[in-house]
Amino acid sequence: MTLTSSIIQGGVTAPRGFRAVGASAGIKANGGLDLALLVSDVPAQAAAVFTTNLAIAAPVVVSREHLARSGGAVRAVIVNSGCANACTGDEGLQVARDMTFETARLVNCPVEQVLVASTGVIGVALPIQKIRTGLPPAFDALGADTAHGALAARAIMTTDPFPKESASQIAIGGLDVRIGGMAKGSGMIEPMMATMLGFVTTDAAVPAALLDRALREAVNDTFNAITVDGECSTNDCVMLLANGASGAKVDESTYGVFVAGLTAVCRELALGIVRGGEGATKLVTITVTGGATTGEARKAAKAIANSLLVKTAIHGGDPNWGRLIAVAGRAGVAFNLSRAAVLIGTTVLFRNGRPYDEAAPEAAAYLKGKDLALSVDLGAGTASSTVWTCDLSAEYVRINADYRT
Amino acid sequence: MTLTSSIIQGGVTAPRGFRAVGASAGIKANGGLDLALLVSDVPAQAAAVFTTNLAIAAPVVVSREHLARSGGAVRAVIVNSGCANACTGDEGLQVARDMTFETARLVNCPVEQVLVASTGVIGVALPIQKIRTGLPPAFDALGADTAHGALAARAIMTTDPFPKESASQIAIGGLDVRIGGMAKGSGMIEPMMATMLGFVTTDAAVPAALLDRALREAVNDTFNAITVDGECSTNDCVMLLANGASGAKVDESTYGVFVAGLTAVCRELALGIVRGGEGATKLVTITVTGGATTGEARKAAKAIANSLLVKTAIHGGDPNWGRLIAVAGRAGVAFNLSRAAVLIGTTVLFRNGRPYDEAAPEAAAYLKGKDLALSVDLGAGTASSTVWTCDLSAEYVRINADYRT
Repeated sequence: MTLTSSIIQGGVTAPRGFRAVGASAGIKANGGLDLALLVSDVPAQAAAVFTTNLAIAAPVVVSREHLARSGGAVRAVIVNSGCANACTGDEGLQVARDMTFETARLVNCPVEQVLVASTGVIGVALPIQKIRTGLPPAFDALGADTAHGALAARAIMTTDPFPKESASQIAIGGLDVRIGGMAKGSGMIEPMMATMLGFVTTDAAVPAALLDRALREAVNDTFNAITVDGECSTNDCVMLLANGASGAKVDESTYGVFVAGLTAVCRELALGIVRGGEGATKLVTITVTGGATTGEARKAAKAIANSLLVKTAIHGGDPNWGRLIAVAGRAGVAFNLSRAAVLIGTTVLFRNGRPYDEAAPEAAAYLKGKDLALSVDLGAGTASSTVWTCDLSAEYVRINADYRT
Repeated sequence: MTLTSSIIQGGVTAPRGFRAVGASAGIKANGGLDLALLVSDVPAQAAAVFTTNLAIAAPVVVSREHLARSGGAVRAVIVNSGCANACTGDEGLQVARDMTFETARLVNCPVEQVLVASTGVIGVALPIQKIRTGLPPAFDALGADTAHGALAARAIMTTDPFPKESASQIAIGGLDVRIGGMAKGSGMIEPMMATMLGFVTTDAAVPAALLDRALREAVNDTFNAITVDGECSTNDCVMLLANGASGAKVDESTYGVFVAGLTAVCRELALGIVRGGEGATKLVTITVTGGATTGEARKAAKAIANSLLVKTAIHGGDPNWGRLIAVAGRAGVAFNLSRAAVLIGTTVLFRNGRPYDEAAPEAAAYLKGKDLALSVDLGAGTASSTVWTCDLSAEYVRINADYRT
């Protein structure tokens, strides 16, 4: 069995039996799309991973409750942008519940079969009346084609410079199975167990336990391996809905190919979040080798990926490899300077305790590119890990200094 | 006994029996001051704390060796800026040794009575010939007055916008005792056990064990409680030299007043580093209360102080208190949202699970100031901790994207 998947056009409506829409409910002051709805024709089996932030937002509380009560059977997901409904107390919790109630009434399903997510400013009340008014026309406008999936992907954006969609195709038991997703970034991004709003659909039928395992496996090396600014938000979640509309059933024997297709979609969405990170101009792949353990390699890679000095050097195209070594040395992992190495692209700048500064011009030329690979060997073992980050620009400061003004 | 100290004018030459100088040896391309020399008339008892970074720089290796060999007896400290002499292999180690050798020859003391420190770019060779040439005229120009201390404080600067000096006066056994110091920042600043070059002198006589204890105690709540960019450098160190020239001896009964004077000097130097942080426009005091332990309160305060979203919001004068709560919630410490609170200045913006957004204009007006206090209550206990940080500006990005170009 080859674990291959093809990336295809589309997003959450690429799999059969899902309809989506994006609409404007007036939550965003500029009148942009701010309400997304995703509906499965039949109850889908759902799995989800949520933020590990202890300041947990109201929609996360409600979605978790609903998943537990429904046994993972889900008909619809309602999402708003422009307001995170986080740190909003009991009133905020009631608003999140009301969002699922209004959706369930339209879909005609039990309220616990509706999940809810929000993204935007923390600590501001979400006006439920705007959602009550905007939801029925949005529901009437649901569609199963690519354009409707794209509308939903646009409606969940905040400071994202472009929408993030991805879909893949796999074959299970001779049947054509599709997996599609959408996600939004683009600040407060260093997910721990999940990321800031990802939604993935599939028309395979997948038993609950297997679906949950597949989602965690796919997320670990995709959404959980990216960082924009080292922040884990109050609202992070990735939701995966499997409605079986393709007729194909995933079991242990076909689990591998399903995870491959799911990981392909999650990776494309996750890298899209990094590419669209606030103020980002470059996508940077950081690979750490020579770690004592995989966990230590990941820890060092995340420390490098979050270093302001590394991110600004990349922004400036400066092959300042000493900053990578300095971060590796303070990352709290086993590190052996006399066996360590730094490569920018394929250019060796430091190896076995000796700098190769004569290679700096070659590395500087490489850093003019938009898609960069840096690697650091810790000189302490054989484990490795890869994470993705972006550069830090003055535009990032501008966006976040002026976010609410 | 009251543990009071007065801040006085001056720096490392404020205590009697110390001479200092700053000179230009041509290490900096722009011809600026880049060589500092500090000499005690008699062997001083020394204590030092060094970086915990595992990519340890050559001068740190040599200074540690010398302190061990001399039993802490120190006559001189030689410091260069413009080149960190870090990740420079065996050649770099030899250069650091040669710097102490040349100094010892001029001072006429054993080589192990000379300490050495470097700051600047990592991974570039330090030209020892320039130091050999520049050192003798610098030695001849040593002076014990305030102006000479100020020259040394200037010579250790890299991207620092201004020199950092401080001095205090205490009384021990009826004798006038002085403590003086200088320090440099201003990037790669989140010291762990020490900071990027601090030098403190005193004319008290202090036994080795007591001196070491006093330095660690003073550093913990000053240099180790600041952050500019969350980076711990390869060269961090704080050195304290006590030469006894005042005739006063510190013992257990006068330890408290000595630590008070020492802490006052270290705090002023540490806050100077934050005020002069790369691109900084505001000094921010972050106090975390309601922690389960002091360590957890410190951990949460550091996480808030290093958050890009918090630092950019402060830069923009945006009272975006939700970002402080979000960081507290992901800081990996005990946190209770329903009992948590955020204050900007003395304005309550969030308390007991409820936002007070009507107070936002008052908080926004406060944030226009240059010297700010923010506090977060974790709602999880009674422990507290204070750290200092600065805002993050587009100027920070410019400085670090172009550092070597």
